Amino acid sequence: MSRQPVPGDKFSFGLWTVGWQGRDPFGDATRRALDPVESVHRLADLGAYGVTFHDDDLIPFGAGDIEREAAVKRFRQALDATGLIVPMATTNLFTHPVFKDGAFTANDRGVRRYALRKTLRNIDLAAELGARTYVAWGGREGAESGAAKDVRAALDRMKEAFDLLGQYVLEQGYDLRFALEPKPNEPRGDILLPTVGHALAFIERLEHPELYGVNPEVGHEQMAGLNFPHGIAQALWADKLFHIDLNGQSGIKYDQDLRFGAGDLRSAFWLVDLLETAGYDGPRHFDFKPPRTEDLDGVWASAAGCMRNYLILKERAAAFRSDPAVQDALQAARLDQLGRPTAEDGLAGLLADGTAYETFDVEAAAARGMAFEHLDQLALEHLLGAV
Amino acid sequence: MSRQPVPGDKFSFGLWTVGWQGRDPFGDATRRALDPVESVHRLADLGAYGVTFHDDDLIPFGAGDIEREAAVKRFRQALDATGLIVPMATTNLFTHPVFKDGAFTANDRGVRRYALRKTLRNIDLAAELGARTYVAWGGREGAESGAAKDVRAALDRMKEAFDLLGQYVLEQGYDLRFALEPKPNEPRGDILLPTVGHALAFIERLEHPELYGVNPEVGHEQMAGLNFPHGIAQALWADKLFHIDLNGQSGIKYDQDLRFGAGDLRSAFWLVDLLETAGYDGPRHFDFKPPRTEDLDGVWASAAGCMRNYLILKERAAAFRSDPAVQDALQAARLDQLGRPTAEDGLAGLLADGTAYETFDVEAAAARGMAFEHLDQLALEHLLGAV
Amino acid sequence: MSRQPVPGDKFSFGLWTVGWQGRDPFGDATRRALDPVESVHRLADLGAYGVTFHDDDLIPFGAGDIEREAAVKRFRQALDATGLIVPMATTNLFTHPVFKDGAFTANDRGVRRYALRKTLRNIDLAAELGARTYVAWGGREGAESGAAKDVRAALDRMKEAFDLLGQYVLEQGYDLRFALEPKPNEPRGDILLPTVGHALAFIERLEHPELYGVNPEVGHEQMAGLNFPHGIAQALWADKLFHIDLNGQSGIKYDQDLRFGAGDLRSAFWLVDLLETAGYDGPRHFDFKPPRTEDLDGVWASAAGCMRNYLILKERAAAFRSDPAVQDALQAARLDQLGRPTAEDGLAGLLADGTAYETFDVEAAAARGMAFEHLDQLALEHLLGAV
Amino acid sequence: MSRQPVPGDKFSFGLWTVGWQGRDPFGDATRRALDPVESVHRLADLGAYGVTFHDDDLIPFGAGDIEREAAVKRFRQALDATGLIVPMATTNLFTHPVFKDGAFTANDRGVRRYALRKTLRNIDLAAELGARTYVAWGGREGAESGAAKDVRAALDRMKEAFDLLGQYVLEQGYDLRFALEPKPNEPRGDILLPTVGHALAFIERLEHPELYGVNPEVGHEQMAGLNFPHGIAQALWADKLFHIDLNGQSGIKYDQDLRFGAGDLRSAFWLVDLLETAGYDGPRHFDFKPPRTEDLDGVWASAAGCMRNYLILKERAAAFRSDPAVQDALQAARLDQLGRPTAEDGLAGLLADGTAYETFDVEAAAARGMAFEHLDQLALEHLLGAV
Repeated sequence: MSRQPVPGDKFSFGLWTVGWQGRDPFGDATRRALDPVESVHRLADLGAYGVTFHDDDLIPFGAGDIEREAAVKRFRQALDATGLIVPMATTNLFTHPVFKDGAFTANDRGVRRYALRKTLRNIDLAAELGARTYVAWGGREGAESGAAKDVRAALDRMKEAFDLLGQYVLEQGYDLRFALEPKPNEPRGDILLPTVGHALAFIERLEHPELYGVNPEVGHEQMAGLNFPHGIAQALWADKLFHIDLNGQSGIKYDQDLRFGAGDLRSAFWLVDLLETAGYDGPRHFDFKPPRTEDLDGVWASAAGCMRNYLILKERAAAFRSDPAVQDALQAARLDQLGRPTAEDGLAGLLADGTAYETFDVEAAAARGMAFEHLDQLALEHLLGAV
Repeated sequence: MSRQPVPGDKFSFGLWTVGWQGRDPFGDATRRALDPVESVHRLADLGAYGVTFHDDDLIPFGAGDIEREAAVKRFRQALDATGLIVPMATTNLFTHPVFKDGAFTANDRGVRRYALRKTLRNIDLAAELGARTYVAWGGREGAESGAAKDVRAALDRMKEAFDLLGQYVLEQGYDLRFALEPKPNEPRGDILLPTVGHALAFIERLEHPELYGVNPEVGHEQMAGLNFPHGIAQALWADKLFHIDLNGQSGIKYDQDLRFGAGDLRSAFWLVDLLETAGYDGPRHFDFKPPRTEDLDGVWASAAGCMRNYLILKERAAAFRSDPAVQDALQAARLDQLGRPTAEDGLAGLLADGTAYETFDVEAAAARGMAFEHLDQLALEHLLGAV
Repeated sequence: MSRQPVPGDKFSFGLWTVGWQGRDPFGDATRRALDPVESVHRLADLGAYGVTFHDDDLIPFGAGDIEREAAVKRFRQALDATGLIVPMATTNLFTHPVFKDGAFTANDRGVRRYALRKTLRNIDLAAELGARTYVAWGGREGAESGAAKDVRAALDRMKEAFDLLGQYVLEQGYDLRFALEPKPNEPRGDILLPTVGHALAFIERLEHPELYGVNPEVGHEQMAGLNFPHGIAQALWADKLFHIDLNGQSGIKYDQDLRFGAGDLRSAFWLVDLLETAGYDGPRHFDFKPPRTEDLDGVWASAAGCMRNYLILKERAAAFRSDPAVQDALQAARLDQLGRPTAEDGLAGLLADGTAYETFDVEAAAARGMAFEHLDQLALEHLLGAV
Repeated sequence: MSRQPVPGDKFSFGLWTVGWQGRDPFGDATRRALDPVESVHRLADLGAYGVTFHDDDLIPFGAGDIEREAAVKRFRQALDATGLIVPMATTNLFTHPVFKDGAFTANDRGVRRYALRKTLRNIDLAAELGARTYVAWGGREGAESGAAKDVRAALDRMKEAFDLLGQYVLEQGYDLRFALEPKPNEPRGDILLPTVGHALAFIERLEHPELYGVNPEVGHEQMAGLNFPHGIAQALWADKLFHIDLNGQSGIKYDQDLRFGAGDLRSAFWLVDLLETAGYDGPRHFDFKPPRTEDLDGVWASAAGCMRNYLILKERAAAFRSDPAVQDALQAARLDQLGRPTAEDGLAGLLADGTAYETFDVEAAAARGMAFEHLDQLALEHLLGAV
């Protein structure tokens, strides 16, 4: 297996990732602005297949039509020149102070209407550029204090917003689905739809649930101490993994957006194992921030590392799955039994089966070891290339 | 408003709460076992209206039919004597070593069948004792290592289990609904359906979603750093708050099960405010553990404190909501606008409205303060009785 | 007790707190810059007694001598006009990109020398303005990855820096002590001297340990899940609480800098109880950030809330301590015994005392309840003004 | 480098680790008790060089002299037969309910005296068995509520206890040093001396600080979200790393005690790199709990995994350090400069050096990238064996 990324690997990057200038809550920018065209070319050179953007990444906030058209034209030319595609786009509903209390759930109704219009406008551009997924990260939808947000009312407004956006996409005939991106906190004290679970549940209350899925981000779930591959598995189980944001995070703290592979390495291994075996065929999208200690060389080293780490982990996961010792260990751990129904015999059969309860040897069952430690050690050694 | 609990307050306690003997991961029991009958009488004296139980709290694990009947009979007599009701019951699928790898999602199929039968048996007792809610906490459904659990297969098994249980309840004609209780971790490294959101999402994939809701526990959501009232609000919004477990937790750490009011006091205030204004009319169920430093006097002091704190917070929340200064502050914070639809004019209207985007004065909107600090200070002073 | 702050309460604020413009990792400023002179006047009006500053808060980074002198002169005039004092000053070693890898422990030696000189220069100003405490928050001293920082070498550099600063203060004869401010992370992935404990330990290795103490911040310790009053108690026990930063934080997440009283209210109560009974007589310094949802009215409301909340908690803590029921409960919880030596009889006495071990009735001692729940409920009701 | 452990690797295990029966807060034991003699033989077979114990691991709590002597004799015979040594011993001051409120800092003076005597008794045994380190984990020294513990008084009692123990060791002429083991919480809500830093600071206030160091445990520091190698580096810097407890932990949650290598793998790599390059020559002590899913085969697999993982990481760290590309990268990241004093020219020299400040080109310095991402990617690839 090659560790050199190719378009078939479906690696994509946001313009805002490599373009992040390093402004953080305590410090000013450490890098110059990157021209989107430059980023497209560099990412293509590194082996990516796609590039994604917020409206404001491409077209400065408040730009007039001429400036807008020029920006789009230059961007499209870069795409054509490199062969990069735009698999996803999204809206910036968080940088401008007008969104300080949220966008779709801002208390201020005018702000909500403005946010919807800003989003609708960029959906047109996304469709025009061929995006198939439209991500919605509601980073400002939340509160720092209890009375400031009536959460049930806010969820009504959130539903109203997504129903309207869905209606628009359907009316326009766009081949575009929405992917909601959950996050527990930061920049708001608490953000609505804080985890993959909350987003999945919310979607079921929309007018056209089939139009909406999730875009989980590694670090966001880990900021809540959750097992990321478990969350992805539930999203896949629900047929709702529309997109994914790969990066790294070192535990429960501020949003770090480390390059993929940094942070919790073992979790990254299980994630790649899951994505590669579960039939996920969407983009492997890196949503990271090259640390502000880096200059532009460091930025591109960091971006290359994201892809290389994915490929190394993919190679290791494949070796793990194909190792006969692992297959034996999985059987010893009774994973095969987990794949079988508990009651093919149905409720009546189960109730009638004395061996299931009345004569079940509880103590004997309790004494059987699960052999998970042996299995996990095999996994660790495959990850380390130390088998 | 009185701070003396009465049955109309709908306070209930699990037998296992006041009966907890103080065995923890590093220490032996510090208190003698409590007879359930004693607990029923003491709880009634303190002002509770209900008592809840796991099968094994009432009937020792593995007891024969005669022992079982005797235990149930004594318990029922205590209920009759005190007027206490059983609003909820649940199954212990975690103490016995047979459940060391889970119950409904144990890799071992025999264990899964046994767990289902154990549950079905206790559902009969729950129905017989008049319970309307059957709680399912899957504390052992999870894993410590990545390959030990195929989460998608496990969710299949979880769905199979709940579908079977639902079928049984329907066939038996029981007036009983299920409430799933999420928890992120402990005793497993990661537990399936880790948050209210994940549980709500899972329910939507069951055969009869209307039979299932959630039983969120204060500390469990706070162990993931989540805002508990926000999660409750989403459950209420989805019409799925079937039951609630009240207790206290001091942040992200092991499961503390402090008495209600201990831990995050401001969150407790907002929770009571929400429950009392959102029309929740189920039990206020305390699922706490009196610290093992306490003797039995301390146990009852702790139980009494749970109820008293709820009543104090209810009084304070009511005063907050009825204060004209608060109503002004809510308006200044534009909560009234949040209650209005964003686009009564529909998508077409919104698109046609130039004031929504083209001529919207973004900078002016951005400059308007939200006045949340003033509002939150009022709330804090009401909580403190310092208005 | 009055809830109206007066200078005798020793409340102080950083220029950078009320002056925070609301720029966060995901958003632009929401408020205009505040003139330090305006802040001094407003804070004096609100009842503060002191104002504190980073060099760059007062004098723009890179300003020439004339601009510098003018800024200092205007500031001093405002102090004179209002009677506000400057109890503390500090250096900004984090905003400018030159500090992206740290200041005293930057890998780049030139940066380290520059950082020391920048600090020495501001120490002169601090002394000139009468400050008695010089705070050092090393927010950029840390790393995001393992090899990037040799921590032992970095601690050598840190020691070298503080020893030099101490030497300078001694040589100049300034009446100034240093207060190190720990923080576990943000803006760096991990920051050196991450907790009060680590800073206290570090100080013991300096040339003149007596010159150095700590400046703990509520939220910083809570970002590591630590009990803030416990940390303060250890600092007081070591005679090292030279200064304190009061604010609020809702658990383990990004640095929130909420107003004092927001966040963990019960912890705030115990903190005030400790400060007021332990003889701490330094400033009560608020280091908070009015949420970016607020306009300037909200900023001043938030600042006023910090002080008002302190005074309410002080009043409640005093009532708690003077309540005879509390004094009985403390005795029942055997706090009086904790105040007595364990072995006045010395090692030999203890070894010779058969009642201490050989005939000690372990089971009887184990059975005695600690009565902590009753005591804690009393505390909670005092806090709530619900006794 | 071999991955087969040998005594020269200095691997040791606590009797309580492999002997853990799997009792957790929600479940009963899943494994039978292990005879210490059996453990000694199995650990020797696996390649360990040492075994450690709490008094009660070896001699049942409350055993009479005859039972005690017999237990010690059998244990000593097993040591002799296998060649295993006892590098460390410790006291169980947490399991029996008498310690429910602590041992050295229990409010109850009788309990404190008893705890001291229990410890003194086991110190004799430790010395007799040749231990050089005596560990003190004060897991019950803490509180769940604010008034229950006067922390300053408790620290007085803690100091008194350690001073007495030190006096005893000196008087007896034992070649034994104490290693304090910090932990932030669990089983108490908050534990005193919660981190390595707090313990290091406390030690400086003892009568004979040189007798005391720390015994940091991987998972304990990670339960506070702290960077474990950073804490170890500070302990080494202070010459206070007397012992170390190796295990695994998946972030901020309950104490997991996973086998070494599980949990945060990258942190484990940096830890081994540090221990092996910093001259630490004490035991590599595994303080883990084989998950309760395992039978005894799983227990030994898990113990073997701890050692094997250490050896793999040691091999990878050595390769990393000796790789010329890494050495170049370290230089590019200016680690060499960090090793140089900041001011060999002293304070006067620094103040006189115009190039340090007046003519220092801040913008140029700010623009230089640190090249940390390249360095970290090299480290990751070495860890993965993917160079």
